[in-house]
Amino acid sequence: MTRDEASGAGCDPADLPRHPRAYPESLPVTGAWQPGDEVGGRLFLDVAPGRPFALEGGGVLDQVTMAYETWGELAPGADNAILVCHALTGDSHAFGRSGNGHATPGWWNGVIGPGCAIDPERHFIVCVNVLGGCQGSTGPSSIEPGTGRPYGSRFPTVTARDMVRCQAAVADHLGVDRWLGVVGGSMGGMQVLEWGVMFPRRVRSLAPLCTAVAASAQQIAWSAVGRTALALDPRFRGGDYYDAGPGDGPAAGLAIARSVAQITYRSNEVFTERFDRELVNPRAVYGPWDRFQVESYLDYHGAKLVRRFDANSYLVLNRSMDLHDIARNRGSLESAVARFSSVPVLTLSIVSDTLYPTVQQTTMRDIVRAGGGRCDHHVIKSPDGHDGFLLATREVGSHLAGFLREVEGNG
Amino acid sequence: MTRDEASGAGCDPADLPRHPRAYPESLPVTGAWQPGDEVGGRLFLDVAPGRPFALEGGGVLDQVTMAYETWGELAPGADNAILVCHALTGDSHAFGRSGNGHATPGWWNGVIGPGCAIDPERHFIVCVNVLGGCQGSTGPSSIEPGTGRPYGSRFPTVTARDMVRCQAAVADHLGVDRWLGVVGGSMGGMQVLEWGVMFPRRVRSLAPLCTAVAASAQQIAWSAVGRTALALDPRFRGGDYYDAGPGDGPAAGLAIARSVAQITYRSNEVFTERFDRELVNPRAVYGPWDRFQVESYLDYHGAKLVRRFDANSYLVLNRSMDLHDIARNRGSLESAVARFSSVPVLTLSIVSDTLYPTVQQTTMRDIVRAGGGRCDHHVIKSPDGHDGFLLATREVGSHLAGFLREVEGNG
Repeated sequence: MTRDEASGAGCDPADLPRHPRAYPESLPVTGAWQPGDEVGGRLFLDVAPGRPFALEGGGVLDQVTMAYETWGELAPGADNAILVCHALTGDSHAFGRSGNGHATPGWWNGVIGPGCAIDPERHFIVCVNVLGGCQGSTGPSSIEPGTGRPYGSRFPTVTARDMVRCQAAVADHLGVDRWLGVVGGSMGGMQVLEWGVMFPRRVRSLAPLCTAVAASAQQIAWSAVGRTALALDPRFRGGDYYDAGPGDGPAAGLAIARSVAQITYRSNEVFTERFDRELVNPRAVYGPWDRFQVESYLDYHGAKLVRRFDANSYLVLNRSMDLHDIARNRGSLESAVARFSSVPVLTLSIVSDTLYPTVQQTTMRDIVRAGGGRCDHHVIKSPDGHDGFLLATREVGSHLAGFLREVEGNG
Repeated sequence: MTRDEASGAGCDPADLPRHPRAYPESLPVTGAWQPGDEVGGRLFLDVAPGRPFALEGGGVLDQVTMAYETWGELAPGADNAILVCHALTGDSHAFGRSGNGHATPGWWNGVIGPGCAIDPERHFIVCVNVLGGCQGSTGPSSIEPGTGRPYGSRFPTVTARDMVRCQAAVADHLGVDRWLGVVGGSMGGMQVLEWGVMFPRRVRSLAPLCTAVAASAQQIAWSAVGRTALALDPRFRGGDYYDAGPGDGPAAGLAIARSVAQITYRSNEVFTERFDRELVNPRAVYGPWDRFQVESYLDYHGAKLVRRFDANSYLVLNRSMDLHDIARNRGSLESAVARFSSVPVLTLSIVSDTLYPTVQQTTMRDIVRAGGGRCDHHVIKSPDGHDGFLLATREVGSHLAGFLREVEGNG
């Protein structure tokens, strides 16, 4: 067990070091899981068994499995269920320890937990690995029925709308007619917004955090350059690399895509504070490939992702983010937002987030309000950039707790 | 001749379209060259003939050639000479048309030109292709003496200090004992600062624009990811790709490095204004590699750079930027800056520049002033991001003109 996994600071992570300089022994500690809690067991659901699942983009999947986890218990009135939607490289393990099939601790420990905003002692919490993912749900590495081989390059394009339809099937299965809240940041927030447009009567509140009503040109540009780099890796083999042998996939390419993303997820301020111009080896300065600490950091995060994530899933989910646009084929942004005008919305911005800048969340807020809806908006003064929605658990949790309590009170 | 090259708007580019939506027929027009001007002829100087040239990093070059261009005439008192230092993918062709050996029009047309801040009718203007470059100066694609083969991977690490020593040799050759001004943005600004520290008595003024006293962790991170992507290209062959056959170099890898850089050079605002979510083909939406216009833009700029730039030069110059730190081996930043405390300094920021954010230039200003020096600082309200130092020619030229005139008046 690493130090991360053993940490148990409950919902008060203030005593944890935020940006230790030494690396990589002390990665940022985001976990706040309580020792003694059980690891959430992963469950599986066959969505629409026996029927093909038609995707928004025109593709068809003959069989769709959703992997999900739950924490807490559904109340007799089924009015305490919260759906947590994960971001690009997240999975269903939003809460708990690592180990037992989970490569990392819960990605939202500290927002989810006993006494936290989303509380397994009060709420029935559900998190579903998205369609196209690689942590149990159907994705490019799944076996294509009838072929006995992984989909690879044949896996179809999926969108946030497809993901939400799969999540709705899980809700049906679990007996959740209406979520108390649907909550998520970044790519997760895209799903939250689609829940509002697609199933407004199935949601009592929405919390799309650090996200946008549509991916911007700059966001698409960052995605594109990462995907192009990944595909340049000769081991990518057009996406059909699963038969090439264990470990012979496009690890280098995926690591580069991750590095690009990792820089956009953080901020200039944090990079300067943590790494400044420190060298890996202070005596190795002038070699063409001598390295600064920040390069080592990028390599480390690239290698870490490669160990737990499939390159094809990265491409598929990344592309779904580029395609995110709640207005597509719905006439206008206004008419899409009008669908959930009776549902209270909370959105958050991180002041240092240059990837999903505050203007995207204020745009969302203004459109919701212009349509007669309610949208609360807060800016969190964290230096952590886009990753603030994962790291600033105290501030995110505080705003979310207040919002959810009010929604619960109005039940 | 393209539309860019034919444009002749003098120093008033206000009537040129700034951000046309259609693409790629209408790239941003930065040229302001006057028809009838001659293309600057490229000249060559053998630096320290017969003697090895020892580099800061420990490498040695047996022969060093500098390619440079000049415009205007050196005054009898040799007091009107301005050195213009180019940025990463620039070259000596700071002013003039394209054609006749120049792939692009002068990169600072509009700042340089008749009636402009830097005026060939009043000034003797010099621009030197940097050491490590690929436009005539010695670089990785040059033939290594005694081997008959290009250096490739054997080309040593160079720093801004090495570049400046080569420029000083050109100054000696041209009879310029003291520059009226040394001027440049981004990587060019790094050389400007090194001129101040290394040769304070040879400069009457310094204008390091949109640059920093040392590369930041985030800037290093962006460099690193581009270089790693370039090296992933199987055609890179560790840097020894020149013998592989014409056009068989790491074009795809260099294009990715360029794409990464291109996004950091611009701004979210400009990308949204120019491209938003427009598709290359509005009917091709859901294919895994269907493209948005912004992707086409990145591809175009990648391909354009590949046609005129050597991948090894890109790596060498990029690395020199990471190594930029005027304090290195000089005790402290303060003691380095103290060397040019009697030289007036002008620096500029672009408000939307997230790669070289304003805080870097205010830091520079504050350190110069704390040491008793003079540093003027202005923020230009351009949406063009870091590239604003190339594109906002009117504003850059205006500040530069006022600064240089004052220095000239104090001659």
